[in-house]
Amino acid sequence: MHGTMQISQKGHLTIGGCDTVELVKEFGTPLYVMDEEHLRNVCREYYQAFMAKYPQSEVIYASKAFFNLAMARIIAQEKLGLDVVSGGELYTAMKAGFPAERIYFHGNNKSQEEIEYALKSNIGRIVVDNPHELAILEDAAEKCKKKIKILLRIQPGIEAHTHEYIKTGQIDSKFGMAIATGQALDMVKMAYAAKNVDLEGLHCHIGSQIFEIESFRHTAEVMMGFVKQIKDNLGIGIAELNLGGGFGVYYKEGDQPVPINEFADVILGTVAQQAEKMGLQIPKVIIEPGRSISCTAGTTLYTVGSIKHIPGIRNYVAVDGGMGDNPRPALYQAKYEAIVANKADASPEEMVSITGKCCESGDMLIWDINLPKMESGDILAVASTGAYNYSMSSNYNRLPRPAVVLVDNGKAEIIVAGETYEDLIRNDVVPERLWDNGKQLRTVSR
Amino acid sequence: MHGTMQISQKGHLTIGGCDTVELVKEFGTPLYVMDEEHLRNVCREYYQAFMAKYPQSEVIYASKAFFNLAMARIIAQEKLGLDVVSGGELYTAMKAGFPAERIYFHGNNKSQEEIEYALKSNIGRIVVDNPHELAILEDAAEKCKKKIKILLRIQPGIEAHTHEYIKTGQIDSKFGMAIATGQALDMVKMAYAAKNVDLEGLHCHIGSQIFEIESFRHTAEVMMGFVKQIKDNLGIGIAELNLGGGFGVYYKEGDQPVPINEFADVILGTVAQQAEKMGLQIPKVIIEPGRSISCTAGTTLYTVGSIKHIPGIRNYVAVDGGMGDNPRPALYQAKYEAIVANKADASPEEMVSITGKCCESGDMLIWDINLPKMESGDILAVASTGAYNYSMSSNYNRLPRPAVVLVDNGKAEIIVAGETYEDLIRNDVVPERLWDNGKQLRTVSR
Repeated sequence: MHGTMQISQKGHLTIGGCDTVELVKEFGTPLYVMDEEHLRNVCREYYQAFMAKYPQSEVIYASKAFFNLAMARIIAQEKLGLDVVSGGELYTAMKAGFPAERIYFHGNNKSQEEIEYALKSNIGRIVVDNPHELAILEDAAEKCKKKIKILLRIQPGIEAHTHEYIKTGQIDSKFGMAIATGQALDMVKMAYAAKNVDLEGLHCHIGSQIFEIESFRHTAEVMMGFVKQIKDNLGIGIAELNLGGGFGVYYKEGDQPVPINEFADVILGTVAQQAEKMGLQIPKVIIEPGRSISCTAGTTLYTVGSIKHIPGIRNYVAVDGGMGDNPRPALYQAKYEAIVANKADASPEEMVSITGKCCESGDMLIWDINLPKMESGDILAVASTGAYNYSMSSNYNRLPRPAVVLVDNGKAEIIVAGETYEDLIRNDVVPERLWDNGKQLRTVSR
Repeated sequence: MHGTMQISQKGHLTIGGCDTVELVKEFGTPLYVMDEEHLRNVCREYYQAFMAKYPQSEVIYASKAFFNLAMARIIAQEKLGLDVVSGGELYTAMKAGFPAERIYFHGNNKSQEEIEYALKSNIGRIVVDNPHELAILEDAAEKCKKKIKILLRIQPGIEAHTHEYIKTGQIDSKFGMAIATGQALDMVKMAYAAKNVDLEGLHCHIGSQIFEIESFRHTAEVMMGFVKQIKDNLGIGIAELNLGGGFGVYYKEGDQPVPINEFADVILGTVAQQAEKMGLQIPKVIIEPGRSISCTAGTTLYTVGSIKHIPGIRNYVAVDGGMGDNPRPALYQAKYEAIVANKADASPEEMVSITGKCCESGDMLIWDINLPKMESGDILAVASTGAYNYSMSSNYNRLPRPAVVLVDNGKAEIIVAGETYEDLIRNDVVPERLWDNGKQLRTVSR
């Protein structure tokens, strides 16, 4: 039970004061539900733990976790910055009127068009990944007659304990340049020599869904060591240190997220301590939570369809969504917890496995979970789906992507309309010659 | 080199007589290219091997592999049937004027709305997965005053040698009812007793990307054994046997697809043989190729961006797409081959790994491939991307989904327009209260 989740007297799950059974009647399923109060509370917790307590810090939301115009508005209102990784994310932020100076542009392979778009938008920082990008940026800035503030993406050489796919700080990585190979220092030299960029600082990111606070302490130490190395070797001062995100969140029993406050104190304390030890100015410290801001604010509601008891083997409960709206179990073997929303007060009675409706055996949402006796028509609420669910969703099997509804204080508002069948063929074009003669269907082509 | 792929005198890769370098100039990258001649040739090979040779057979294309209005037209023109698994796929087929009587509706968890839509559309067959669905269908047919012809999805209990996620014929599966548990026979009884459905036959599917022809022979034997069991126990004759798809295709060296002709002869021969042995009528035999029709007709073109040499460790070559347009490497550890399209005649010179532009370490397209020396701006062509690439694509990182272009005989036509940034926010809705007062941005909301 995250955020404002409660069980009503009727035994229904409520989120943001909204009865989920009523939400389903109004909006259908599958449905992504975002708990606005919880979302804002986490933003505020981050703001308080970092920016309010240490003015020399900044929290920027990693928009890839969950993003759309409304989310951009909420993040802007909560006074956080924004980490975008593509022209599409930047476009969304700009359309939402997000303050450009609080936007950081990341990515291992930005296109020239994206770099120019970022320059024209006057965003705060570009996080330059490699010398190739630095060269493109230098040219683009020259062309636009602008100076742009940058950070450099550095590989600290740290292996965080997490899924292989979301481990990014090790040397064998597509991201950034490594300290260990000397390539990071070379890039610092290049950036410092470049005319049209101002080298403000360094950035690193060691991975996602990390629970060991020691990984972050170690990262801060390694990065401060590199700041010292830059100072000693090149005489360049580093004003900003972006230590990335990757703070683990609760998905399932056993997950023990570190309180935000503790994170802040360890990260900022370590940087200050190292600065003092090394005789350096304390840099501004930036962090980039994504998942830990939006994940537990999200819940997906499904309607149960077919139920299959295979004697002695397994009970399959099928819902009306699946790997299209939540590819994480198939991609990362991610584990989720769920509750029967219309029987939220009932006791677990049977072990079931929750499957989606995609024509693929890998389309499993949850293996082996104890739930109350279920019937077709029940509402299943899968928790912690606020990050990397909507943002990674697809139209696989030509399933329209679900709506996103923002709930707060008993009120529910659509923030992303659910796709329709019409949306699925919106971009389809049929060359005239493929219509058979005499067919009256030509109006369908775009 | 698949289908019409050639290397031009300029040393460029051509597909369908189109220079891929020119395609990129015209349409940009990433770009899905579909080779129409090759696509139609494979359809014709299937038609010839099955329907022309054995009139008592039918080949239906599994649209989940790759589908849109133009593809529906091509499949219709090639006289194949169609396997759809959702209302969205059915909608696309109907909008394309696909002959309804040649459509089969599959899926483990069809919704009531989908079933009613299928009935109203007068499609050929519904493949009923389980008793729950049978009950919904019976009611819906009663309401529509229609009789509907059905097949029943049966689990033959066969473990095909393929990726865990795409292995579907085993007893512990979300699909169908198992022969081994007696539940399949029970469902046959129910279906036969149902007033509003005509039980025409059985369906099974043992998995995807299978190379062992013996798996299919064995499946045909098991299913014919079940037909005999039904005859003996219930006195019911089975007129149609749908043996599914799953025929392996070439992705990488070592993949050895069975020629379509051989498949046809083995599958149809086994059914006929078993029928004779058991004293049964030879049923109509239906097969459902998806991947094997569209996969090798598809090639994805990318532009190379940043290139990173990590001494002694790895060379990362980044392209402007990735897990958004091709999630298969991340999902299934799928392997691909590639060619540098603008240097198609150059010899391999270095071992590189191809990475995408998504902010995620798992966003790797190809690990360790020998390619000619590459520079930023080169065009990389990844082969065998015609199945489960476009259809599984997402907007992860808010990357617009690429266009699909159909090439033939030197002509290139868009069949799916590439998404724009505007498309990304098309369904976004911003509640009025989230706009700060006085902002002039309200026109953005939907």
